[in-house]
Amino acid sequence: MDLGTIGGIAGGLVLLIATMWTGGDLGSFANLPSFLTTVGGTFAALFVAYPMSKLMGLGAITRHAIYKREDNPGEMIGMLVTFSEKARREGLLALEDDIDEVDDPFLKKGVQLVVDGTDPELVRSIMLTDLDKIEARHAMGKDIYDMAGLLAPAFGMIGTLIGLIQMLANLTDKASIGIGMGIALITTLYGAILSNLIFQPIAKKLESRNYDEILLKEIMLEGTLSIQSGDNPRIVKDKLTSFLPPSVRADVATEVS
Amino acid sequence: MDLGTIGGIAGGLVLLIATMWTGGDLGSFANLPSFLTTVGGTFAALFVAYPMSKLMGLGAITRHAIYKREDNPGEMIGMLVTFSEKARREGLLALEDDIDEVDDPFLKKGVQLVVDGTDPELVRSIMLTDLDKIEARHAMGKDIYDMAGLLAPAFGMIGTLIGLIQMLANLTDKASIGIGMGIALITTLYGAILSNLIFQPIAKKLESRNYDEILLKEIMLEGTLSIQSGDNPRIVKDKLTSFLPPSVRADVATEVS
Amino acid sequence: MDLGTIGGIAGGLVLLIATMWTGGDLGSFANLPSFLTTVGGTFAALFVAYPMSKLMGLGAITRHAIYKREDNPGEMIGMLVTFSEKARREGLLALEDDIDEVDDPFLKKGVQLVVDGTDPELVRSIMLTDLDKIEARHAMGKDIYDMAGLLAPAFGMIGTLIGLIQMLANLTDKASIGIGMGIALITTLYGAILSNLIFQPIAKKLESRNYDEILLKEIMLEGTLSIQSGDNPRIVKDKLTSFLPPSVRADVATEVS
Amino acid sequence: MDLGTIGGIAGGLVLLIATMWTGGDLGSFANLPSFLTTVGGTFAALFVAYPMSKLMGLGAITRHAIYKREDNPGEMIGMLVTFSEKARREGLLALEDDIDEVDDPFLKKGVQLVVDGTDPELVRSIMLTDLDKIEARHAMGKDIYDMAGLLAPAFGMIGTLIGLIQMLANLTDKASIGIGMGIALITTLYGAILSNLIFQPIAKKLESRNYDEILLKEIMLEGTLSIQSGDNPRIVKDKLTSFLPPSVRADVATEVS
Amino acid sequence: MDLGTIGGIAGGLVLLIATMWTGGDLGSFANLPSFLTTVGGTFAALFVAYPMSKLMGLGAITRHAIYKREDNPGEMIGMLVTFSEKARREGLLALEDDIDEVDDPFLKKGVQLVVDGTDPELVRSIMLTDLDKIEARHAMGKDIYDMAGLLAPAFGMIGTLIGLIQMLANLTDKASIGIGMGIALITTLYGAILSNLIFQPIAKKLESRNYDEILLKEIMLEGTLSIQSGDNPRIVKDKLTSFLPPSVRADVATEVS
Repeated sequence: MDLGTIGGIAGGLVLLIATMWTGGDLGSFANLPSFLTTVGGTFAALFVAYPMSKLMGLGAITRHAIYKREDNPGEMIGMLVTFSEKARREGLLALEDDIDEVDDPFLKKGVQLVVDGTDPELVRSIMLTDLDKIEARHAMGKDIYDMAGLLAPAFGMIGTLIGLIQMLANLTDKASIGIGMGIALITTLYGAILSNLIFQPIAKKLESRNYDEILLKEIMLEGTLSIQSGDNPRIVKDKLTSFLPPSVRADVATEVS
Repeated sequence: MDLGTIGGIAGGLVLLIATMWTGGDLGSFANLPSFLTTVGGTFAALFVAYPMSKLMGLGAITRHAIYKREDNPGEMIGMLVTFSEKARREGLLALEDDIDEVDDPFLKKGVQLVVDGTDPELVRSIMLTDLDKIEARHAMGKDIYDMAGLLAPAFGMIGTLIGLIQMLANLTDKASIGIGMGIALITTLYGAILSNLIFQPIAKKLESRNYDEILLKEIMLEGTLSIQSGDNPRIVKDKLTSFLPPSVRADVATEVS
Repeated sequence: MDLGTIGGIAGGLVLLIATMWTGGDLGSFANLPSFLTTVGGTFAALFVAYPMSKLMGLGAITRHAIYKREDNPGEMIGMLVTFSEKARREGLLALEDDIDEVDDPFLKKGVQLVVDGTDPELVRSIMLTDLDKIEARHAMGKDIYDMAGLLAPAFGMIGTLIGLIQMLANLTDKASIGIGMGIALITTLYGAILSNLIFQPIAKKLESRNYDEILLKEIMLEGTLSIQSGDNPRIVKDKLTSFLPPSVRADVATEVS
Repeated sequence: MDLGTIGGIAGGLVLLIATMWTGGDLGSFANLPSFLTTVGGTFAALFVAYPMSKLMGLGAITRHAIYKREDNPGEMIGMLVTFSEKARREGLLALEDDIDEVDDPFLKKGVQLVVDGTDPELVRSIMLTDLDKIEARHAMGKDIYDMAGLLAPAFGMIGTLIGLIQMLANLTDKASIGIGMGIALITTLYGAILSNLIFQPIAKKLESRNYDEILLKEIMLEGTLSIQSGDNPRIVKDKLTSFLPPSVRADVATEVS
Repeated sequence: MDLGTIGGIAGGLVLLIATMWTGGDLGSFANLPSFLTTVGGTFAALFVAYPMSKLMGLGAITRHAIYKREDNPGEMIGMLVTFSEKARREGLLALEDDIDEVDDPFLKKGVQLVVDGTDPELVRSIMLTDLDKIEARHAMGKDIYDMAGLLAPAFGMIGTLIGLIQMLANLTDKASIGIGMGIALITTLYGAILSNLIFQPIAKKLESRNYDEILLKEIMLEGTLSIQSGDNPRIVKDKLTSFLPPSVRADVATEVS
């Protein structure tokens, strides 16, 4: 689990609530209608903006931001180099037995195509299409959070405008002006917190996660093609470790031998 | 029909109207001249910004955002794989009889070109041009809604400025200041709601719809070229299902056999 | 003539002036110094931002936004198909006589190169360079209006700041505060109207016009190359009509026979 | 010299100062500390943002915006066509004598490579790298002015915030509130003028200048490669004039003969 | 060390503090809770936005902005030309002895691949992947500072909203209104200074540093490939110096002989 996502949001909220507390009464910051306007408006607009099927997947996408995948590119490279050694020794068909060991469906499909003797150009084209569409689906998740990050402050401002207009219609009671104005500003505050502490940062984290996952899949793609073309296992390792930062390459070396 | 678009707009409006109601008199939020300034100004500027012919198509574009097309990429793949089996068994000319069954004009034209024995490079180039221009025309629809999403708050602000200047010219009547100010803010409120609940989200939904339609057409393009090059039907299926998310691929498998 | 550009601006202005009128005295919205600050400042900055030669062409560019070119891609395709039939029947040299009929200098040059027996790769490269630079020159026109759309509200705000500072230096005369403030806001209003009703929408319309013109030139380019490579006229028509929306293709069919 | 840059800035300043004057006392707009905060803050941040070496080149870059280069693409094309005629008549080596006449180091290097019998692919690659890096260095100049255009209003706002906080700490002296507020706004005014009349427009002009220079260098590149490949001088002229707007091409015709 | 980064921040702070001082009491600008809200909120959101591993690397990235690398592209070109001379005289294997002298791991790997007789296409592909991923990792560093530059003013505004709401809840004590308002504005001031003097400019400097480092690595890549393909050392030098600005090329000439 990635403590950063949950911890950052919790820490930020504690900090902001502490700031509210020091200044006096915490009650002036709690207003259910304001909360409903900001959150409800944002959700209503998201239903207009995205097909139901994509919004339904938002839970899975969010889990992606919270939990860190336990992918290990070094181990993956080790496996691919082992495959390449075996393929050179015993032929591509020998990899048939290893397909079941492969967990990742993307790599599984690639190795299966290679074992079936598919034309290399076709293998590349099929795997690239797959990669391309995975990236497009991930981008959609980020896009929803980005849009929420734009909508939340907008509906916060809409709530504030509604509060201001109500207040201005009843200026006779001077004592309540400050309070009315304060309530009006609360929706803007809610929108700003939702956008800057939750929605926009989660969109960014999804971008990072996507980058890591695509990197791993690029390694699988290059590895599969290298295995098929019968590259020297040393070259396969050189090729695949060049996807990693130098600091991590040493680990791969020891793992692979 | 996609309940999201209509339902989201309706739900959002109900929520905002409820918020207005709880604060007192709903009447302070209704102002016909303010509405006319925001909506009229936005439309006037759209007429400057886009050729009449493109604005005329706005109704059809909007229907696209409300109704969900009943496209089924899995079925399409099934049909293309069947075509590829037939073409391998009986030759490309045998597809002539199937052209009438094809509803989509893009695929119909592609299969026709293949049956006519057109050079593969030409088939690809013609279909790619077609795809490219479809995408450009769809992008125009999204662009109009994006522009409306920018213009509505701008004309909202213009209306508010007009109201403020009028109010400031008559500061003598102190009692009416609040009311004048409230009316001035209403155009900003209208502009913000139009932009954030309707125009911007519809632009986003059109983007999703366009993505889905282009994906389907890419499947048609790749399928047509695969059929022409005489690919193994199993490979055709592998190639085309790689356009779909893994969760949907199983369905294709059962449909196709 | 495109009524949209002129009509949209006129309609928008009428609407806004009507709104000003209903609120009372139209005179509070007329202020020559404010107008000069906004428009003069915008123009001064445009002279800094663009070479004189490009600003001199602004009249011609603006005319482009107002008048609709009477281009007819269907007719153009008809002409190109006719050329391709003639070239196949009588040879490329036979097109020499038709060059004079061609009005468009881009197509004229292309056909001349083909008749002269220029290498196809060279014809493509020369025509693509030409197309590329036409697009760059058009983009400049749009860019100037975009920049004006940014500058006008900025100078509007500068005028408002000047007005506010003047007012704040003379707070003694309380009666005039409101009036001074109103005058200060007028420059912001002028800037917002210029930007949102005129400059930004015209930039958008120029983008549409450019798209249409480039589309036509792409048809000419593809047509010329198809004629040179001796493609079957039926294929030439298929290739070129794929640039058009399906709804228009039927017209081409009847025109071409 | 390009009167536009200097003239536009001067004209804009005169206009704004006139507006300040008409409203009363010009003195309320002059405030040295405000000026220092805006300009000093912007410069301090630029030193953080760019390596010293790049900021040192800012003078040369600015001169680029003020002075118009006396480049003449028509003349350049004339020279290249003459070279191509000579090369076809007397061989590529004959161009050795003409290298000294070439002023531009980019073209000089290209012709030298051709005379030395360098492989055409290498000539293209070397010249393209050169062109690419020239463009990157120019983009840096524009980038600095763009950044200054963002920083100036930001530091203007920072100055205004400082002024407001100072004023709010001393609300007892009611008479000075207006004056304090006015002074606070002056930094925002300075920032807006610097950004919108000077920094942003100069960034735009540098973009234009860069476009013109790169266009000229593209002509040199294409010309050099055409000469090396022994293209017909008529073709060389056709190829190179396609970089120019049609209105200018006639001039080239007369110059070249 | 690059005095610009530290010096610019220090200079900017001194200037701003001086401005605060001249206006009266410096104490009205110091407020620990405001500082904690702005900085703490920004950091909390960064933990949500980026994986822990990437934030951990922020120290190293920042050092990159402060210290100037002592890279010398001219020297590097000299070394590569020497290598190319040796390789032509004594064969590629002779470079084995020089690998230990190479400090840069990117070039070391490249030369090792060449000495091992790896296929040129593979060398290019491995080095390009490496380069691509280096660039992506650097971009992440810039991205974190860019995000901080967006978050700081946002949390500044959130702090100001909290302060305003607190103040509006206690309007009875008129004397404290100004002071409360002043305190509220301090968080906006802190956010603006952090963003515009520190975060955004450092992001820009990292971009410059990245550009310089990638340029050096492009020279290494092109040099390695030129050496492998046995290019004439004179050509190698021409090729590699075209990456540098003309003003620096002369130095290379003297260094290389």
